[in-house]
Amino acid sequence: MADGKEKQRTTVSIYGQQYTIVGYEAPSHVTKVAKQVDEKMREIKSVNPYLDTTRLAVLTAVNVVDEYIKLQEKLEQLEKDKEERNDV
Amino acid sequence: MADGKEKQRTTVSIYGQQYTIVGYEAPSHVTKVAKQVDEKMREIKSVNPYLDTTRLAVLTAVNVVDEYIKLQEKLEQLEKDKEERNDV
Repeated sequence: MADGKEKQRTTVSIYGQQYTIVGYEAPSHVTKVAKQVDEKMREIKSVNPYLDTTRLAVLTAVNVVDEYIKLQEKLEQLEKDKEERNDV
Repeated sequence: MADGKEKQRTTVSIYGQQYTIVGYEAPSHVTKVAKQVDEKMREIKSVNPYLDTTRLAVLTAVNVVDEYIKLQEKLEQLEKDKEERNDV
């Protein structure tokens, strides 16, 4: 009956709190994502020990969006290069 | 004297709070990142109105890391394709 498209509930622990994530993603993917968020929060906390959890979480999101935009720019460059090669 | 490598302080507003981000990034980049985080938080809040700000911020980070990993996989595939073409 499971066709891989049913929503799944995955409970993860991030920075000492439990979160239940509902979605189509495999639990292994959700766990990997949660682990990265947890590690990033602990990393930012270690250099900014005065941060409260809300500000820490917001700055973690800022950090990841920054990396996301840079990766996106790299991807756009690669796709542009690819198009240029195809033009030759 | 400014060689573009000096650290800059950029103050941004995310979900009604002020954050001063210190780094080598241009203020325009920091502002763009902050805007994306703010928008993502408001988007998640609109579908989960019961969330407190800390959990909202953590789930925002989860959301962005999820997108980051997917983008990374896409990039890896593109680089693999590129290598394979170079092998021919």
